[in-house]
Amino acid sequence: MTNAQYCFQQLYNLSRQNKVLKGISSLLDWDQKTYMPSGAAENRANQLKILAGITHREKTSLSIRNLLSQLIDLKSGNLTAIDLTPEQQLIVQEWHREYLQNSVLPTEFVEELTKLQSQAIAVWHVAKKENDFQKFAPFLERLVLMNRQKADLIGYTDHPYDALLDKYAHGMTTEQVTHLFESVKNFTISLLAKIKSQTIVDDFLYSSWDSAKQMAFAQQMLDAIGYSQQIGRVDFSAHPFLAVSHPTDSRITTSLHEKSLIKNLLFLLHEAGHALYETGLPVEHFGTALGEHCSIAIHESQSKWWETHIGLSEPFWHHFYPILQKSFPPQLEKITFHQFYQAINKVQPSLIRLEADEVTYPLHVVLRFELEKDLIAGNIRVKDIPESWNAKMQQYLGIRPKNHSEGCLQDIHWAMGVFGYFPTYVLGNVFAAQLFSSFAKNHPNWEIQVAQNDFSLIHTWLKNKIYCQGRRFKSSDLIQLVTGSELSEKAYFDYLKTKYSKIYEISIK
Amino acid sequence: MTNAQYCFQQLYNLSRQNKVLKGISSLLDWDQKTYMPSGAAENRANQLKILAGITHREKTSLSIRNLLSQLIDLKSGNLTAIDLTPEQQLIVQEWHREYLQNSVLPTEFVEELTKLQSQAIAVWHVAKKENDFQKFAPFLERLVLMNRQKADLIGYTDHPYDALLDKYAHGMTTEQVTHLFESVKNFTISLLAKIKSQTIVDDFLYSSWDSAKQMAFAQQMLDAIGYSQQIGRVDFSAHPFLAVSHPTDSRITTSLHEKSLIKNLLFLLHEAGHALYETGLPVEHFGTALGEHCSIAIHESQSKWWETHIGLSEPFWHHFYPILQKSFPPQLEKITFHQFYQAINKVQPSLIRLEADEVTYPLHVVLRFELEKDLIAGNIRVKDIPESWNAKMQQYLGIRPKNHSEGCLQDIHWAMGVFGYFPTYVLGNVFAAQLFSSFAKNHPNWEIQVAQNDFSLIHTWLKNKIYCQGRRFKSSDLIQLVTGSELSEKAYFDYLKTKYSKIYEISIK
Repeated sequence: MTNAQYCFQQLYNLSRQNKVLKGISSLLDWDQKTYMPSGAAENRANQLKILAGITHREKTSLSIRNLLSQLIDLKSGNLTAIDLTPEQQLIVQEWHREYLQNSVLPTEFVEELTKLQSQAIAVWHVAKKENDFQKFAPFLERLVLMNRQKADLIGYTDHPYDALLDKYAHGMTTEQVTHLFESVKNFTISLLAKIKSQTIVDDFLYSSWDSAKQMAFAQQMLDAIGYSQQIGRVDFSAHPFLAVSHPTDSRITTSLHEKSLIKNLLFLLHEAGHALYETGLPVEHFGTALGEHCSIAIHESQSKWWETHIGLSEPFWHHFYPILQKSFPPQLEKITFHQFYQAINKVQPSLIRLEADEVTYPLHVVLRFELEKDLIAGNIRVKDIPESWNAKMQQYLGIRPKNHSEGCLQDIHWAMGVFGYFPTYVLGNVFAAQLFSSFAKNHPNWEIQVAQNDFSLIHTWLKNKIYCQGRRFKSSDLIQLVTGSELSEKAYFDYLKTKYSKIYEISIK
Repeated sequence: MTNAQYCFQQLYNLSRQNKVLKGISSLLDWDQKTYMPSGAAENRANQLKILAGITHREKTSLSIRNLLSQLIDLKSGNLTAIDLTPEQQLIVQEWHREYLQNSVLPTEFVEELTKLQSQAIAVWHVAKKENDFQKFAPFLERLVLMNRQKADLIGYTDHPYDALLDKYAHGMTTEQVTHLFESVKNFTISLLAKIKSQTIVDDFLYSSWDSAKQMAFAQQMLDAIGYSQQIGRVDFSAHPFLAVSHPTDSRITTSLHEKSLIKNLLFLLHEAGHALYETGLPVEHFGTALGEHCSIAIHESQSKWWETHIGLSEPFWHHFYPILQKSFPPQLEKITFHQFYQAINKVQPSLIRLEADEVTYPLHVVLRFELEKDLIAGNIRVKDIPESWNAKMQQYLGIRPKNHSEGCLQDIHWAMGVFGYFPTYVLGNVFAAQLFSSFAKNHPNWEIQVAQNDFSLIHTWLKNKIYCQGRRFKSSDLIQLVTGSELSEKAYFDYLKTKYSKIYEISIK
């Protein structure tokens, strides 16, 4: 074995080990949100802190530095080893990028931030329940401060937010996102104005739905789209999420409401879309960039693919609606397919992001993006958040929260210390639309197959176009490679225009 | 701060960190046995292996050695630091003992054994289900071999089993246990012969018991004995167990059978007894011997205390039987208290240890002890296990398994790579009886209180006598200190004689 191959192998072993530890943290996080006794929060924070410390020390150890420096120039990022395969070169470049990202953060900083996040989550739960922003504010202040410090440590050219955004949408800048989101915001507000005058009856969706029956139907649906119970499972949590320990252990949660069956089903399709991506990644590359998801933004495109392009589509319900009717005769036997399809796609401004329809959803995200960008830049203060939030809700959606629980305390992300993540939700919409439009163009009979409960065409396409690529490309490059066009919001706008002009029988240009 | 105090503090931090990592492994183990998707077994084995490797490296690191060597002579175990408090001295001596135990095992050995254990558990599950000992045998062979190697690495004077037993019953020898178990075996076989001629009707215990109602009643019972849902929880697994991450996170499981309510309730009381011990340990000493359980054998005395001395006692059911009757009128409304009390204490040889009554239970354990002692010594081979098992069942209990699932494949312990653990189950019986007899002598009104659903006397006694001591003493020294008498099986025999001569209306000398 050459020295380069030896160093590569050593780095590979270390990288796999770190990935395994990350998987353990992910399980601890899953447990905290599902089954952990409430009194154990402080201990869990400590467990996560210690694990983060170990992982961080391992990732930034002198031995990793020494091994890397024998393959790549640490300053310039130019490869120096000559006998690496092209795949190995890519992997080494990604290890180098990760090493630089990690090594700028002192271990004590990472430990401290991890512990603070875990504590803040516990406080946020109480604050949300008690509608008490003041209780959460001191934690949010510390989290903003530490994220700003993080941005400074990572470094940036234009905007401190760039440094945070890069983790979730590598290769995209704050300026690019700001520009894209302005366009999405304007389009959405204008579309919303046209839709507002119309009405769709959807009361029947908000009757009473037996929990056990909901989950029995959901399981049929998950089985059909290929989310295997052998390597996944479904649990309940306040906020639906995916927890990945490994391609063979990819769990999802949902948040069950007796009053709204459809939200539960869409949550599950959304999270299952994430899970299918993770379990579809090439397991033989676990521990390298080739076995990693491309970015959180691409991840979001996968969840939106299944949630909206499938789960809110006519063909999907052509198969599943008769089954749903049989599961819930009192609620649905008199509702026609057309009424059901219209109702699940009803557009109506609402306060809670997770309950928003497909059209208004991006406005919730744009609002959060604008606020967190300003928080990190120091343009607004934590204490101003409630009022800014409410004002933007009024401006974009025409409604105003009555309290903080349905306002700025509704989402867990900031409590998790996560800044730069929210934009991926809308990037996911935009990416998904561009990807799906390309898929549909090449497979015009997809609707017939899906209506027959056959998802093989989609699985094959996603596997060959997205899953198999791992992190070979940046998000926008992957989109361009797969669709043959530059990243653009056009497909997303076209998708909405076609779909909603039909549903609302209006003309949208 | 003096150098000794500085070294102590450093060791304390490292020890706490290792304890936290151990808690994480415990959670991974809990998850594997409760919620983990079956396809994730290989990854879980890898996670546990890596965590075990990290912990082992930390525990045997040069920096621990250096710090320890400034406080204690590593060879002789004599303390060299002069300004440690008596408590600190004890803690340092225990750290030293643990260090020696750990440092004799190479990290690769620990990692390998951990991974093998995790794989063997997965294979055992299938083998038990399919009644296929051959499938499990190669794993058991490797586990026996590695445990024998472990014994050799740890070292022993008389019997290799001593080295393994010490982990679970520190201070006790194979010879001592062999002697005690001979006595218990002879006593039990003779008691069983006297009881055999009598009959008690207990058919009604094996009717049909709604699972949800079982658990609702169980929860009342757990609440009453003080097992808090804030720092614990109840789940289901093939084999009931306790998983402790921390005194604030101490979870129990049960194995629910629709046909047998009483087993479920006794499993829960047993595991809750363990959990009460762990959550009662002084949390301020977490990470030191003063915050640790004394031994697994003493742990077992705590579970047996609640399972048998309380859960199979008349006063306990004086309070709970009327409630149980109300929960299950069709099954119990015609059954008198006396009939119920007799039925739950019915003695009858059976094949499954976990389903055995209080009297025959020790014979199941003695059998396993004899087999595993011989396996480790190389006196019998893995392939001989099924026949030896069946022969001993015939000899001690007069019954013979029809297949391996109800024979030598029934328990998970060997699959977990655990040898030397089984004896603690009977030591627990013996210790519990001696402790309880001392408690009862000093608190003759305990029966009145328990019959009034008041367990405060017991809680106070256990806290002040057992919990607060942590690992200050060896098991037998603790027993002697608390009861004022040397460790002996006398109280155990007396307890059984008194109780069962009354139940069976026979004379037992």
